[in-house]
Amino acid sequence: MDLKKYISAKRSVINKALENHLTNYTLSRRLREPMAYSVAAGGKRLRPVLCLASCEAVGGRPDDAMTPACALEMIHTYSLIHDDLPALDDDRMRRGSPTCHVRFNEALAVLAGDGLLNTAFELLADWALDEEVPGPDVHARLEVIRTIARAAGCSGMIEGQARDLEFEGRQIDIDALEEMHRLKTGAMIRAAVVSGALIGGADNRRLECLDTYSYNIGLAFQVVDDILNVVGDPAVLGKAVGTDSRRNKNTYPALLGLEGARQKASELVEAALIALRTFGERAEPLRALALYILERNR
Amino acid sequence: MDLKKYISAKRSVINKALENHLTNYTLSRRLREPMAYSVAAGGKRLRPVLCLASCEAVGGRPDDAMTPACALEMIHTYSLIHDDLPALDDDRMRRGSPTCHVRFNEALAVLAGDGLLNTAFELLADWALDEEVPGPDVHARLEVIRTIARAAGCSGMIEGQARDLEFEGRQIDIDALEEMHRLKTGAMIRAAVVSGALIGGADNRRLECLDTYSYNIGLAFQVVDDILNVVGDPAVLGKAVGTDSRRNKNTYPALLGLEGARQKASELVEAALIALRTFGERAEPLRALALYILERNR
Repeated sequence: MDLKKYISAKRSVINKALENHLTNYTLSRRLREPMAYSVAAGGKRLRPVLCLASCEAVGGRPDDAMTPACALEMIHTYSLIHDDLPALDDDRMRRGSPTCHVRFNEALAVLAGDGLLNTAFELLADWALDEEVPGPDVHARLEVIRTIARAAGCSGMIEGQARDLEFEGRQIDIDALEEMHRLKTGAMIRAAVVSGALIGGADNRRLECLDTYSYNIGLAFQVVDDILNVVGDPAVLGKAVGTDSRRNKNTYPALLGLEGARQKASELVEAALIALRTFGERAEPLRALALYILERNR
Repeated sequence: MDLKKYISAKRSVINKALENHLTNYTLSRRLREPMAYSVAAGGKRLRPVLCLASCEAVGGRPDDAMTPACALEMIHTYSLIHDDLPALDDDRMRRGSPTCHVRFNEALAVLAGDGLLNTAFELLADWALDEEVPGPDVHARLEVIRTIARAAGCSGMIEGQARDLEFEGRQIDIDALEEMHRLKTGAMIRAAVVSGALIGGADNRRLECLDTYSYNIGLAFQVVDDILNVVGDPAVLGKAVGTDSRRNKNTYPALLGLEGARQKASELVEAALIALRTFGERAEPLRALALYILERNR
């Protein structure tokens, strides 16, 4: 399948929906501008695309998952805005553009992040109550909200961010590193895949397979991120490289060597593909996305 | 009625529930500590108490509103943590204790705030799906989630916070000031009252009366806050006074004079009480709370 075409088609629908939602859910330009700036800043839209592709893989209509897909991207963007703040990672560039607090100011970056997190749940609550929008029943929709909230919260992504900060400059072992990434990046990638599957009406057996798939691609994504921070091209990545080693961050290349990390990423993607073995042709986009994660250069 | 006894009884149930939820929704002490620290820091629990009292006023069981009441307090606390950050209000003391970023650090304060906002929605999603917990049906529960999310978001509290920052040091008129407070403080107070009423099964006529009540006490609360920043006792308030005038903040005493502001607060509480005229004895706590807001000294 032509993944580039697939992603680019999905991306443009997602981008349009995100833009509409930001207009509808913000009262004024004060907050809309910094929120829209960071949302528009050239993201790969990996989480929303995974959500739509997962819905498709279990036989659902991808369009039914469009609103949760947007909420996932809003939550992802808020986490980047807050992570980039001077008190956290102090990053000045992201995806080739100044970060939110550099382009606007720190106060607005805090509020824009808060705004995106809150808007995600506002949007999800409206979606769950909107009987005009096709999709699963209200209980399944609430299950999606619960899945996303759990993944984003203090037993998921936020806990991962806190560990990442705490581990900086400290020697940790591979298990602690893996657990941190499972929380910081993996939880939301898993939520994207599981949400899509719930909306598509997956049974428990398929949900389990997709859980395995998402666990493995989530970790693979992070391993590749670490590798790109060593060997990536700053012009393609849109951000500086070598920053992890300067900050003494615990990374896969640091713990396993560059070749070991590459090996690890391949094995994870292999495991993800095996989990999809019983899925038919409708899972082609998910398969292609796993390979894309391995081979990406940005 | 003995409001002190009423509030203190409700407060202790709310505090216990908040503590339980923070334990259940955080994976480790890293985040739980700063979150629990700020939640425990001597708040008045005005929003959760209003939510329970409003449920009671329309004939519901206040206990049915306990979980949303906790979510409201978590969202309120997150907004204080982020508002206190150096890039925003830069407050070092709150309710007699060091603010979260002073006691811990800025990075943890950002994440603890994020964590409380996210946990509020996680908690609400679990509540909406939990058929073992007595309360209204799933649609009414979702309506509560929507009401809270709307009030907290970019057409509510966060927009109010953004305006507050923007207006600092600028001359604005009383309408702009009122609109800012309606968003920054009023929206969440209204959400507390309306949520309680929805859980108690209020009809539209009662919902409208409670809307008027909450609009007026919300604004009165802010006017009194401004007055206390001029004439309050720092030892009782647990924070510095005179800070608004030093920061050139737009306040009611600045625009109306101290006596004018006092007059305004009385009129607002009077209007709130009139809105409850057709309510029976079960609305006594709401009436007493309106008077408490007017007469409080902290």
